[in-house]
Amino acid sequence: MQVEKTIQKFMADLASNLPAPGGGGVAAISGALGAGLVAMVCHLTIGKKGYEQSWADLKVSLAESDKLRQRLLELVDEDAQAFTRVLEAFKMPKENPGEQEKRAAAIQSAYRIAADVPFDIASQCCQVLKLAFPLVDQANVNAISDIGVAAYTAYAGVESAIMNVNINLPSIKDEEYVKLRTLQLEKILTEAADLRDQISQQVNKKLGR
Amino acid sequence: MQVEKTIQKFMADLASNLPAPGGGGVAAISGALGAGLVAMVCHLTIGKKGYEQSWADLKVSLAESDKLRQRLLELVDEDAQAFTRVLEAFKMPKENPGEQEKRAAAIQSAYRIAADVPFDIASQCCQVLKLAFPLVDQANVNAISDIGVAAYTAYAGVESAIMNVNINLPSIKDEEYVKLRTLQLEKILTEAADLRDQISQQVNKKLGR
Repeated sequence: MQVEKTIQKFMADLASNLPAPGGGGVAAISGALGAGLVAMVCHLTIGKKGYEQSWADLKVSLAESDKLRQRLLELVDEDAQAFTRVLEAFKMPKENPGEQEKRAAAIQSAYRIAADVPFDIASQCCQVLKLAFPLVDQANVNAISDIGVAAYTAYAGVESAIMNVNINLPSIKDEEYVKLRTLQLEKILTEAADLRDQISQQVNKKLGR
Repeated sequence: MQVEKTIQKFMADLASNLPAPGGGGVAAISGALGAGLVAMVCHLTIGKKGYEQSWADLKVSLAESDKLRQRLLELVDEDAQAFTRVLEAFKMPKENPGEQEKRAAAIQSAYRIAADVPFDIASQCCQVLKLAFPLVDQANVNAISDIGVAAYTAYAGVESAIMNVNINLPSIKDEEYVKLRTLQLEKILTEAADLRDQISQQVNKKLGR
């Protein structure tokens, strides 16, 4: 499992010519980092005097961010598996029409998973931004910069994941699927960009910038 | 050392109320992920037929990206130490004027390091973007989305690191230092945003978007 590697080792494998981890895994890691920071900010606020009104809400945010982090870490491995599956489908025999048909179907199915996984990563990263947004007003002001970092990092996860869907879409022949995913991604990107900008502006304002 | 932890453990510690890792460490990880992807793209191009003209340049980029990745991983720990140093300075005794003076000086010195470390992270992340930029034209076109992800992720590192400098600057009394850092950061952010946008546009163009 990728996430059982040390950071040092994961980074070395990323920097090598190994098939995984790659850009999709990086997108999921970015989302998990954002979710981790959201959880940290919740911990630094729950129980802190002066923030009593936020405690109940932030307990919910904490539980949700823990779930998102775990899910995004699973997606690091799912992305690695999806890429391997594409490579394996291409290696299938293609000696006769029967084999060719089977191989073509396996390739289509593998590409679809290779698009679905980063699509899921993009959605989850956008959820991290949604969770971070209300914290700007609710959380311990000493942790305000961490909310900003969470937003920047999760947004990079959204953009990166979308790029990984987009590189696979041209190989998918199901036009309805491609059209649907394209529309869904536009919506996710617009929402994520809006949340990112609002969080960034409000955090910078609180930092006096 | 933070980078000797598994990703799972690093993320769990990030998501806890431990003093480190925090936003500065996340910024450095983002930069290291970007540098790792740049190295990966170099590996996927060096030796690949059709890209002979890029091989020599990309060997240089590979060596530089490996150095940047290692440096950014060191900065994850340096950021954790800098934060601890601030906390320790505040715990120093302040019973008499002598102690108070010593403590105030230690706090100033600690804040300066806590601003210098993320400043260094921002600079290094910007170097990753500079390294990624020429790859758009030079690298294996199959790895084009990874260059885009490298740019998005390293740029999040720049923004995140800058936010971590900015949260410490108001505590620093040396006005010349604060002025200098503010100007330097503006320059880094402008350069990084420009590189990010250019890389993103060109990658999306090559992806037919």
